[in-house]
Amino acid sequence: MYVANIRGRLATWVDGKLADVEQVSGGRFGSSPAAVYRRWDEFRAWGDNVGASGSPAEVPSGLGAPSPAPRQTFGIGLNYRDHVEESGLEVPGFPSTFCKFASCIVGPEDPVEVVGNTSDWEVELVAVIGRAAHNAKADVGWDYVAGLTIGQDLSERTRQLADSPPQFSLGKSFPGYGPTGPWLVTPDELTDPADLPLRCFLDGEKVQESRTSQLIFSVPQLIEALSSIVTLLPGDIIFTGTPGGVGAARSPQRFLRPGQTLVSEIDGIGQLTTTLVGPS
Amino acid sequence: MYVANIRGRLATWVDGKLADVEQVSGGRFGSSPAAVYRRWDEFRAWGDNVGASGSPAEVPSGLGAPSPAPRQTFGIGLNYRDHVEESGLEVPGFPSTFCKFASCIVGPEDPVEVVGNTSDWEVELVAVIGRAAHNAKADVGWDYVAGLTIGQDLSERTRQLADSPPQFSLGKSFPGYGPTGPWLVTPDELTDPADLPLRCFLDGEKVQESRTSQLIFSVPQLIEALSSIVTLLPGDIIFTGTPGGVGAARSPQRFLRPGQTLVSEIDGIGQLTTTLVGPS
Repeated sequence: MYVANIRGRLATWVDGKLADVEQVSGGRFGSSPAAVYRRWDEFRAWGDNVGASGSPAEVPSGLGAPSPAPRQTFGIGLNYRDHVEESGLEVPGFPSTFCKFASCIVGPEDPVEVVGNTSDWEVELVAVIGRAAHNAKADVGWDYVAGLTIGQDLSERTRQLADSPPQFSLGKSFPGYGPTGPWLVTPDELTDPADLPLRCFLDGEKVQESRTSQLIFSVPQLIEALSSIVTLLPGDIIFTGTPGGVGAARSPQRFLRPGQTLVSEIDGIGQLTTTLVGPS
Repeated sequence: MYVANIRGRLATWVDGKLADVEQVSGGRFGSSPAAVYRRWDEFRAWGDNVGASGSPAEVPSGLGAPSPAPRQTFGIGLNYRDHVEESGLEVPGFPSTFCKFASCIVGPEDPVEVVGNTSDWEVELVAVIGRAAHNAKADVGWDYVAGLTIGQDLSERTRQLADSPPQFSLGKSFPGYGPTGPWLVTPDELTDPADLPLRCFLDGEKVQESRTSQLIFSVPQLIEALSSIVTLLPGDIIFTGTPGGVGAARSPQRFLRPGQTLVSEIDGIGQLTTTLVGPS
């Protein structure tokens, strides 16, 4: 299934054609993209019944964040070896976890105001939880994932790194610094959900490229690690980490400026386009 | 006003007598302790009209977390000088901010399962947001505060400190590691909401004692600092930091064990009693 938030309404595609879920389900499922994760197994079974599958024939307008009101948003640092190396740090023994405060989560059509002169890009695979998880094991980790989407873990490096201990959670939670989208893709739609090519383009120039098979902690391993501590809740979001190529690690350093466009791409999911703007 | 969550229903006290808000308001306010923060100004005006004030004559049973479903829960580290010193760290120039993931927030009657052998106590003043805030200034900071309650920022030190960067957010988010309560007290009920004596007792022995006037960043200053980055939302929780006396800084170190009882006390608010249990 491909599942989207279109102008605040839950939508899916049946044979590639866009369908409003509340209408098609005769009201069985409400219109809320946020609430559907609490009934995810039932929703998936319904989707299979009505033949909801196939990728969107075209990109609709009005797209919002696929999980617009997560109770918990996890960010994982240092989860690709080339990014660990460019950061001059060591491979962590346990997923290095911060949070993106929920108010930063936006959708693909929301312009993002660039804060300061040291804001950076980080393309990431994002997993959305579809079933509560506590002490879940990695071998059944995918069972807890509603689906995958694309995220930008935008990071204001000065705020993130000025203090000791560093301020990962604040530096990555400025308004709009968590764009997600364009939609949610269930793992069964993907040939191999554990090996997805991902890329980031800044004004058309490719600045990051890797594959999710290069994740140090895979999606199921993150489910196991996080749920060994925290109870994962339906609708929760996991930003799984970014590969090498961020602006802060370049020589000379490069950062985001108003007027630029960031395209984040994951094969099998699609493209998340983020328009960067100046102060309003 | 004193405002409580009693068995999932919103309650207040009128002349010291417990009143169910939905009933007393004739349905004008629903029964949800989580939803009231989105209409906080209206709720406060209603409370003034019906004479909702005065402290509870007795402690009712069935108390839950005053804000049971926060969108964002901020934890502040190193915010009392004696705790900064005992931690061997430096006074931060900006509030050292982590998050407590929402699934750890519980009420005063929930027993908390002690994880491992290095879990520690941290009594804290907790502020709950009653009005959305972005770029709010400290001189009007209290305007954004619905009220105050007591919290324990329970911390599993091994998970918190094993890695670099440290895992404050995970180490402080085990199930039940964010007890809050017993109720919310609006600032006007307190002689000086900026100078509240607070204490923590472990099995009756006083292990922490300070006053909130000793906070390095006061509640209004935290509102200014946090809202300069994140949009604070109604119902959000701020754990403002703990004073000296934690177990990890003692010689020899002391940690929590199943069977112990932690009492967290703030004059003018009340007592939060936390029963520690073993694995179920």
